[in-house]
Amino acid sequence: GVNGFFGERMVDTAQRCGAEVVSVSAEWGSIIEPEAIEAVLKKQKKVKLLALVHAETSTGVLQPLIEASKLAKQYGALFLVDTVTSLGGHEVAVDDWGIDICFSCTQKCLSCPPGLSPLTASQTALDVLKARSKKVQSWYLDLSMLYSYWCAANRIYHHTAPILMIYALHEALAVTVEEGLENAIQRHLNHGNALKSGVEAMGLTLHAQEGHRLSTLTSVRIPSGIDDLKIRKGLLNEFGIEIGGGLGSLNIVLKYLIPR
Amino acid sequence: GVNGFFGERMVDTAQRCGAEVVSVSAEWGSIIEPEAIEAVLKKQKKVKLLALVHAETSTGVLQPLIEASKLAKQYGALFLVDTVTSLGGHEVAVDDWGIDICFSCTQKCLSCPPGLSPLTASQTALDVLKARSKKVQSWYLDLSMLYSYWCAANRIYHHTAPILMIYALHEALAVTVEEGLENAIQRHLNHGNALKSGVEAMGLTLHAQEGHRLSTLTSVRIPSGIDDLKIRKGLLNEFGIEIGGGLGSLNIVLKYLIPR
Repeated sequence: GVNGFFGERMVDTAQRCGAEVVSVSAEWGSIIEPEAIEAVLKKQKKVKLLALVHAETSTGVLQPLIEASKLAKQYGALFLVDTVTSLGGHEVAVDDWGIDICFSCTQKCLSCPPGLSPLTASQTALDVLKARSKKVQSWYLDLSMLYSYWCAANRIYHHTAPILMIYALHEALAVTVEEGLENAIQRHLNHGNALKSGVEAMGLTLHAQEGHRLSTLTSVRIPSGIDDLKIRKGLLNEFGIEIGGGLGSLNIVLKYLIPR
Repeated sequence: GVNGFFGERMVDTAQRCGAEVVSVSAEWGSIIEPEAIEAVLKKQKKVKLLALVHAETSTGVLQPLIEASKLAKQYGALFLVDTVTSLGGHEVAVDDWGIDICFSCTQKCLSCPPGLSPLTASQTALDVLKARSKKVQSWYLDLSMLYSYWCAANRIYHHTAPILMIYALHEALAVTVEEGLENAIQRHLNHGNALKSGVEAMGLTLHAQEGHRLSTLTSVRIPSGIDDLKIRKGLLNEFGIEIGGGLGSLNIVLKYLIPR
């Protein structure tokens, strides 16, 4: 699924691995409809993996996953989801939603420093991994070797662990447990709603499709005639407010606000 | 060049990238002689890259690099060196020695936490990179994209930097500059020599080839009849002295000591 910068990145990454990628595209700012996904799945002989971005950082859109997951199962594909901007800020029910491979990051809604990418794989995904006839092309992210490192009875040395980051993640998770995941999700929702209301009350337009807006990231259209960079520099220098610039094809029309 | 576990790892990594690898092997514990390298270079039509491990962590051997570098140039190959266990503890004269691609780590002789891999590339290596007709297979370590991120006039977003680690590396480098690189190298040599003398005075045998021993890591042969794991556990639990276990094919005969 491609409806933003990070969907495009997944396509690029998969193609580099030798995958034949069929894109299901939607406008940057809209969700990818299940009907569109099914139409493409129907046309293909065999789809190995359906990949979606849960929270598209470049547009502020929250992609619904449950119907897509059912479609993946129905057509015999693994279901992979990028939850970089949702984990800890939105519900991410990996098992209940039938996500086979889920990856995220530490530095967004978990409030941990950047440097690690939490990742989980279902038994189905591990079975596919075990059945491989060729070595994974990446030594670094060879999940079969990482499995032997983390999970095998006879642990096999793979790499020196980044201990500082692991302690940081441990503490960030402890803080999340203390607050309660439900509360953390509610906090992101409250702050996101307050920001959106304020932005709209100022007469500005939100970019992401209504009903599918992230609470963890709000994208705002820049009114015509406004010098984006000048405004953002002024806000940063005079008020200490940093607004991220647009990414990819939305670089001209869209900038996003990150509520803290 | 393969004379230990990390040489083998380079072969594995290169093969996963689709490289046709011709190994120049030596016994685990010995250096790879320039004559052996030249013999292999002569036999091939075209060698793109000559790769060596400077300090082989699995054997305690310091590989001489200058003649190998000259051979690489003579036969039109790039020269790549793994300096994981030497950077900051031995001289690593990247430019003077004609190393085209050099990688290391933060957590050994730089005394920084693990998590980063410092890397440098020569202009020749960058020119080869620019002349590529295909995308690099790894999105994560695509040096052409990392070049645009770090060095291009118009910086292009690639990843969120692991800031905590970068601050840690900055401080570690500041401490090294304060001590002086020459002094740090001398300190590793003194400690290594003291350890080696003590080990030999105890009647134990050093594993690495004489004249080519690392000062940053000392490998010791386990006398027959000694239960390696029991001794090492005892040393750790009773005296707080940790001795690393052997790696790869030296797992049975060799354990290494890391001087602090």
